[in-house]
Amino acid sequence: MIINCVAYEQGRRLRDIQPHEIGEHMARPNCFVWVALHDPDAAEMAEFQALFDLHELAVEDALRGGQRPKLEEYDEALFVIMHMISMREDQLESGQVAVFAGPGYVLSVRLHPGRGFAAVRQRCEHEPRHLKQGPAFVLYALLDAIVDRYFPVVEALEAELESIEDRIFVKGTARQSLERLYQLKRQTMQLKHAAMPLAEAVSHLFGGRVPALCRKTREYFRDVYDHLHRIESAVDSIREMIITAIQVNLSMVAIDEGEVHKRLAAWAAIFAVATILAGIWGMNFAHMPELDWRYGYPLALLMMGLACGGLYRRFRRTGWL
Amino acid sequence: MIINCVAYEQGRRLRDIQPHEIGEHMARPNCFVWVALHDPDAAEMAEFQALFDLHELAVEDALRGGQRPKLEEYDEALFVIMHMISMREDQLESGQVAVFAGPGYVLSVRLHPGRGFAAVRQRCEHEPRHLKQGPAFVLYALLDAIVDRYFPVVEALEAELESIEDRIFVKGTARQSLERLYQLKRQTMQLKHAAMPLAEAVSHLFGGRVPALCRKTREYFRDVYDHLHRIESAVDSIREMIITAIQVNLSMVAIDEGEVHKRLAAWAAIFAVATILAGIWGMNFAHMPELDWRYGYPLALLMMGLACGGLYRRFRRTGWL
Amino acid sequence: MIINCVAYEQGRRLRDIQPHEIGEHMARPNCFVWVALHDPDAAEMAEFQALFDLHELAVEDALRGGQRPKLEEYDEALFVIMHMISMREDQLESGQVAVFAGPGYVLSVRLHPGRGFAAVRQRCEHEPRHLKQGPAFVLYALLDAIVDRYFPVVEALEAELESIEDRIFVKGTARQSLERLYQLKRQTMQLKHAAMPLAEAVSHLFGGRVPALCRKTREYFRDVYDHLHRIESAVDSIREMIITAIQVNLSMVAIDEGEVHKRLAAWAAIFAVATILAGIWGMNFAHMPELDWRYGYPLALLMMGLACGGLYRRFRRTGWL
Amino acid sequence: MIINCVAYEQGRRLRDIQPHEIGEHMARPNCFVWVALHDPDAAEMAEFQALFDLHELAVEDALRGGQRPKLEEYDEALFVIMHMISMREDQLESGQVAVFAGPGYVLSVRLHPGRGFAAVRQRCEHEPRHLKQGPAFVLYALLDAIVDRYFPVVEALEAELESIEDRIFVKGTARQSLERLYQLKRQTMQLKHAAMPLAEAVSHLFGGRVPALCRKTREYFRDVYDHLHRIESAVDSIREMIITAIQVNLSMVAIDEGEVHKRLAAWAAIFAVATILAGIWGMNFAHMPELDWRYGYPLALLMMGLACGGLYRRFRRTGWL
Amino acid sequence: MIINCVAYEQGRRLRDIQPHEIGEHMARPNCFVWVALHDPDAAEMAEFQALFDLHELAVEDALRGGQRPKLEEYDEALFVIMHMISMREDQLESGQVAVFAGPGYVLSVRLHPGRGFAAVRQRCEHEPRHLKQGPAFVLYALLDAIVDRYFPVVEALEAELESIEDRIFVKGTARQSLERLYQLKRQTMQLKHAAMPLAEAVSHLFGGRVPALCRKTREYFRDVYDHLHRIESAVDSIREMIITAIQVNLSMVAIDEGEVHKRLAAWAAIFAVATILAGIWGMNFAHMPELDWRYGYPLALLMMGLACGGLYRRFRRTGWL
Repeated sequence: MIINCVAYEQGRRLRDIQPHEIGEHMARPNCFVWVALHDPDAAEMAEFQALFDLHELAVEDALRGGQRPKLEEYDEALFVIMHMISMREDQLESGQVAVFAGPGYVLSVRLHPGRGFAAVRQRCEHEPRHLKQGPAFVLYALLDAIVDRYFPVVEALEAELESIEDRIFVKGTARQSLERLYQLKRQTMQLKHAAMPLAEAVSHLFGGRVPALCRKTREYFRDVYDHLHRIESAVDSIREMIITAIQVNLSMVAIDEGEVHKRLAAWAAIFAVATILAGIWGMNFAHMPELDWRYGYPLALLMMGLACGGLYRRFRRTGWL
Repeated sequence: MIINCVAYEQGRRLRDIQPHEIGEHMARPNCFVWVALHDPDAAEMAEFQALFDLHELAVEDALRGGQRPKLEEYDEALFVIMHMISMREDQLESGQVAVFAGPGYVLSVRLHPGRGFAAVRQRCEHEPRHLKQGPAFVLYALLDAIVDRYFPVVEALEAELESIEDRIFVKGTARQSLERLYQLKRQTMQLKHAAMPLAEAVSHLFGGRVPALCRKTREYFRDVYDHLHRIESAVDSIREMIITAIQVNLSMVAIDEGEVHKRLAAWAAIFAVATILAGIWGMNFAHMPELDWRYGYPLALLMMGLACGGLYRRFRRTGWL
Repeated sequence: MIINCVAYEQGRRLRDIQPHEIGEHMARPNCFVWVALHDPDAAEMAEFQALFDLHELAVEDALRGGQRPKLEEYDEALFVIMHMISMREDQLESGQVAVFAGPGYVLSVRLHPGRGFAAVRQRCEHEPRHLKQGPAFVLYALLDAIVDRYFPVVEALEAELESIEDRIFVKGTARQSLERLYQLKRQTMQLKHAAMPLAEAVSHLFGGRVPALCRKTREYFRDVYDHLHRIESAVDSIREMIITAIQVNLSMVAIDEGEVHKRLAAWAAIFAVATILAGIWGMNFAHMPELDWRYGYPLALLMMGLACGGLYRRFRRTGWL
Repeated sequence: MIINCVAYEQGRRLRDIQPHEIGEHMARPNCFVWVALHDPDAAEMAEFQALFDLHELAVEDALRGGQRPKLEEYDEALFVIMHMISMREDQLESGQVAVFAGPGYVLSVRLHPGRGFAAVRQRCEHEPRHLKQGPAFVLYALLDAIVDRYFPVVEALEAELESIEDRIFVKGTARQSLERLYQLKRQTMQLKHAAMPLAEAVSHLFGGRVPALCRKTREYFRDVYDHLHRIESAVDSIREMIITAIQVNLSMVAIDEGEVHKRLAAWAAIFAVATILAGIWGMNFAHMPELDWRYGYPLALLMMGLACGGLYRRFRRTGWL
Repeated sequence: MIINCVAYEQGRRLRDIQPHEIGEHMARPNCFVWVALHDPDAAEMAEFQALFDLHELAVEDALRGGQRPKLEEYDEALFVIMHMISMREDQLESGQVAVFAGPGYVLSVRLHPGRGFAAVRQRCEHEPRHLKQGPAFVLYALLDAIVDRYFPVVEALEAELESIEDRIFVKGTARQSLERLYQLKRQTMQLKHAAMPLAEAVSHLFGGRVPALCRKTREYFRDVYDHLHRIESAVDSIREMIITAIQVNLSMVAIDEGEVHKRLAAWAAIFAVATILAGIWGMNFAHMPELDWRYGYPLALLMMGLACGGLYRRFRRTGWL
């Protein structure tokens, strides 16, 4: 589905055009065309492939989901695959955006769910002085928008980690913490697989040898790279803390276990003493004088109580109970 | 065993030829020969070694299994070793394919089990415009076919991981999960050992300095590389999740253990109380008035029941039972 | 807020100037302006952006906190982001300093809390022979001051680690050690995230290709780099020891647990023996001669005592009690 | 001790010579001398040091054991240290071989135990067409022989790992598995320390800049490198599986433990029920009608049996017994 | 404190000189001065700083301890920081040596404890043919001496590891092994922090671009590097085995624990059977014929004994006791 197909001249929007008009606009100097597709079918794609002379393999990748983020150069054109990641009800949702950028055109192909880029286009159109830098700036604007959408995800993951950490030293939460840590790990890795290859890709757009298309926009791509770097280091922190948290969680289980054992042992001792005493006075010896005492029975109960109480106090003091 | 021996001209199949005709076809311009062998014996191999002037060490590797995937350059010729991996009834099956590609010829040597490449040849023959790029395109087609066969394996491993994850927080599945995780780890490493060195090898076929033979097919090899990269990152994810799952599994065992302990402790306390009471009324004191009461016995049983029931309710509330 | 705005000539302080005088001073040879801002608002920043021709993206980063430490080159100017880390009551506090340095000016932008750089300026003004090297030396002085403030933090973390280590083999401290180790890990990672990217950034200011501005001050930046390297290796040591300490802690929990179990088992055995004996003499057989003995009862008690005492001694000797 | 000292011309053995004849043979074109020493004393070594103009530090290394595998270039000469590893009765045995190779000579110095290289020399002498490539080919032949002897060791380690894996999920084997895993780890590391630095060394003998001596034998060294690479990746697999196996082993111990606990708990419950019942009917209440029943006793025993049996069946069903 | 100040010409000792004579000797061709300081004060240092034109930052580092090992180039001069590590009564002791080497001079600055370098100077003076290579050779000799002193430390650590390993599978040693492993880890890291940065530093003194001063002594520095490499790989082995040993230790604790549990369970069962039997015959049923038998009591005791004995034998056979 074609979402937009607009021609720009000197950074200013000319007008919405039809696909068949693209060729003539691309030919004009200082002019470029920005096309946005959403879940296009093969026929639509084939049309643009012919118009922009796109490489067959790149087109295949743009249409099929599940690609790794990457940057490929085809002569003067660039082909970029990015993942859109967003958080929806504790679940990460992932979409794919492919961008073809070459002299005179930008073509973005968005697959599946996720927010569109209407806001990006609008912002760009408000800044003709930037937009007149042409397709490279549009590519930057799209990259920047997508990477900026990673930050709320990072923050959600960090918040989840902190919320788990708050409960990790609380008894009886081990199982739940574990499930949440495992889930968090999965999500962190998903984000990492979106951000890390993209960072590697973007790193080719500034610094040493840069594709001709992007030569005037290096500073911008360095900024995107820097954002991705921040995300990466946040992700690394989260991962390292998850590992530690899982270990700590195991230790906490073992410590709690140890305390249960001590309590169990203490109560067993208390009960055992009472049982032995009762057993002794239940023996059938003929000559057991205390059995005939007037207050033998209450005294016996008292003694049992005292023995148990004494043990109880002692265990209390040593912290076993 | 010779499976096929076909001459191609301008990307079109000429006809099946005999080994002794190979020389003359290789000499013709825009012509090349594509030979497929399966478990050849030394004599057959020696014939082709002489025809194509193959290096002795490479021939040895092609005949003997158990090689690492690799790419070697011999002057203008390329020698590639690949692993074929497939899933058969929960077991990974592995075969080896060696490909010699040089000006005018492609020779593939398949060892042991595994599907052949009839489909690859057929697809190539349907696209003469590609096939006329010569041996490099055939090499690409074989690589691509083999790498594409890794994806179902990756998916099977991911499915197995997910199926384990679904049960990892369920009680009483620890041992089975462990066995499956261990098995999964083995298989993942086997796949990794097939894909990683191959990725490294293929990376020499695009980008900077590329063997002369492959200069016009860079884009294709980059695509294969990209596929291998995807497999690698999937494998890395699986490995990292396996490590985490094993740790989580251990923690779950410890947590379950703790719960068994608590239940054990609770029941021990309940029984102990009943035992003590029975012990007390079993004592032989002369003056134990309740022993002579009309309803002493049922009252005693009632009291035991109440004590035990009270404890039971209490443990229930604290979650120990 | 403008903290300072001073002009220097030949390394000597000329006088405090107003922003509008900056242009004229920058134009004079051997003269530069050093401006310090604290939590500036957008308007103030815009003024200096225009004066020094700063890049829009760099200005944004300087105003917004939460950046990664980094070094960016813009033509002849440098832009550096650093983290200030300090320890306040067992908590790490973090601020951000951005420095713009170019021919004729240095602009430092400090955000949020943390000590200012009055002392740095003072020290610089006392060494005109150094200060006349211009903005690069000021940049060095600021870097050096910030990195020097990391050392007390490292020492505090090392002290905390040592204090934990002193108690890690003491019984009953496992839970507390664990909480402290977890906290220490967090803080160590925070320090690492301040120091490591900065080290990487500073490494571009000496050695091979160095920005023109810093060509005469390489030795100084190498010294800062070396300090950062020391911090990094201290941080790595702490991290590795934390990992080991957490494992050791878990083992200690298990060992202590084992000892509790042995004691529990020993006491259970002792009690069981007494219980059995009492049970035997509580049996109702008609012919149990010892029951009728004159001293049967005290002998029985004695025997119980001896049996229990014997077991006790034995467990003592084997170390179970 | 001099094992052999033979002159070769055009790849053909001339004859055994005396050390003092070496100089004259080295001077002849297409001629070289191959000397093999075994545990030489300092005097012998000094003689050859003078003859071949060997570097003092290299000679020292050749005479002293415990060196790391390495390759050093001295002008036109090469100096290689290798470890010989072999399996003898479940123990790894390690020897050192130093090879000096330069224009016109090869000198191998074997220390301590281990098989000699008579077979290598014999094989070389059967292939004059290879041997006439001179000292570099001899160096290759020695390297190849040593590396080939690593493979049986790798296979022995893999077999041991598999044998451990077969028993890792069997109860009651944890301790033994652990001892074997630990031992396996040691041996794997020993092999790794022999193979990895050697691989790094050999990698300088093919590819980019290659010592003049080896320029015509690159393909051979690449083959050795490839073998070492295979060993490395086998070693890495073993190491990773050992780590996993140790973790799995711990989990299995915990799981087995949990099962023992459950059985313990189940039997404790069964015994407790019987004890309580016996206790109840052992109470001394005056009015306990069942005590006077004709079949009270057998009924009581029956009831106890039923209660215990019922519990037993229930635990059986829930898998605790 | 000045330990030595000697002038050398053509590799031969001229005589001890006074600091003020240094300048004249440095000016003579083929002549150099070797000065050794121990814990110098700032004034002494300042004198030599002026004489040899040392960089202020390097002098600061030489005077202050706690530096990382490093190599810095200042024009034609080299500045090296090394750690001296020695074992004293199970504790590692660490000192710092700084060496300044330039055309015509070597200045070593030793801080704190540790052996001096008198032996090194003596050995050098016995080999004028080496010493005439000038300051670079002295630098090598010092490096070599310090690195050689690491080997006994490595051996002590390896011996300690082996001694721990010998006891790791012995019961009841877990706690002690753990303390020793932790201590060993600390020491290993200390050695690593001395050796690894030094290896990195020394690697700049041979191979590609080498400082002019060291151009004729590359082989020597490569030898030192090789020694450091051996230490590193030994240290890596120790570290990896420590990690494994800690895991194994934990598993051993768990296994031992399991055995204690089984014994506990077995004895509990034996005691429980005896208790139940005593309880049964302690019941007060009117009709319990065996109670009136002549040999009821001894038969009962016999039966208890048989039951307990039978169970004991059974547990014995299954390995629980």
